[in-house]
Amino acid sequence: MNNKEYQVRLSGFGGQGIILAGIILGEAVSLYENRFAVQFQSYGPEARGGASRAEVVISDEEIDLLELIEPDVFLALSQQAFDKYIGDAHEKALVIVDPDYVTNAPLSSRKVFAVPVSRIAREQIGKTIVINMVALGALAAITGLVGIDALKKAVSARVPPGTEKINLKAVLAGYESAREMN
Amino acid sequence: MNNKEYQVRLSGFGGQGIILAGIILGEAVSLYENRFAVQFQSYGPEARGGASRAEVVISDEEIDLLELIEPDVFLALSQQAFDKYIGDAHEKALVIVDPDYVTNAPLSSRKVFAVPVSRIAREQIGKTIVINMVALGALAAITGLVGIDALKKAVSARVPPGTEKINLKAVLAGYESAREMN
Repeated sequence: MNNKEYQVRLSGFGGQGIILAGIILGEAVSLYENRFAVQFQSYGPEARGGASRAEVVISDEEIDLLELIEPDVFLALSQQAFDKYIGDAHEKALVIVDPDYVTNAPLSSRKVFAVPVSRIAREQIGKTIVINMVALGALAAITGLVGIDALKKAVSARVPPGTEKINLKAVLAGYESAREMN
Repeated sequence: MNNKEYQVRLSGFGGQGIILAGIILGEAVSLYENRFAVQFQSYGPEARGGASRAEVVISDEEIDLLELIEPDVFLALSQQAFDKYIGDAHEKALVIVDPDYVTNAPLSSRKVFAVPVSRIAREQIGKTIVINMVALGALAAITGLVGIDALKKAVSARVPPGTEKINLKAVLAGYESAREMN
């Protein structure tokens, strides 16, 4: 195969690890072979039929898809991420940061919510590894973009078996902490 | 928030579970709230700095990004997936199927490789859950799109701690089985 941009579709049914396979392929070529990749999944009504599909675009050059995004919601859990991406956010974007990691957030027209998600993970759940779940709960509460019931169902379906309970607890802790903010 | 399409960026550093959070958000709104979502990550040189970023686009209507894809490589691990997506594949696409799942693959101009990935996972590894890893190894061997060394590094970095060895074994089993095919 010798053209410059390759599009790869992986497909099957839920439980076969299709999306993880796509992520690993994207990371393999970009992190370890110096190429560019975009990995994505599109979800619609057909996703409910149990089919699973993941796409990977691989190129020697930057992929244009990158340019499409001016986020309406921007979550930053590190100062590096905040500094790098805050300029991309829509001027009316809702911005959510962890104040223990993002200590320098210059004033802007964007609305910034500080939610101590790492502290909540550590103190209420006892595991910092669930920081992403706490952040998802907080995002749901602040933006209203997803209902807490749908979020809980999706967490239960996706996390490794046996870890459902602690992940759900983390989502709820984030949700409750941030609910009073909006 | 009341416009029709929302773009969400999640960001931080590796180990915070940013990509998993993006996948869960996309699945929550699509599987459990009847909306459309595209979830994607773009990887480039900056990904090697330890930053992590995931994007979720959420809409009440189908999202155009879907239309961009005419795969050059198409892996199908179920008959349903094969039937649904074979028509999208480029006429010169390399198609890889599991013959135990895709039993009906009509002749076409596309080159079809039958690799019994589920059987390899069951008989050589003893666990069907690694079917995705066997498939990734086979894909690497058939397409040459990613080197086996990069793939092994990416697998080690992404799979749950403690499962590296079995996943690497699965990747190699798929790679070795398919290598003679190309």
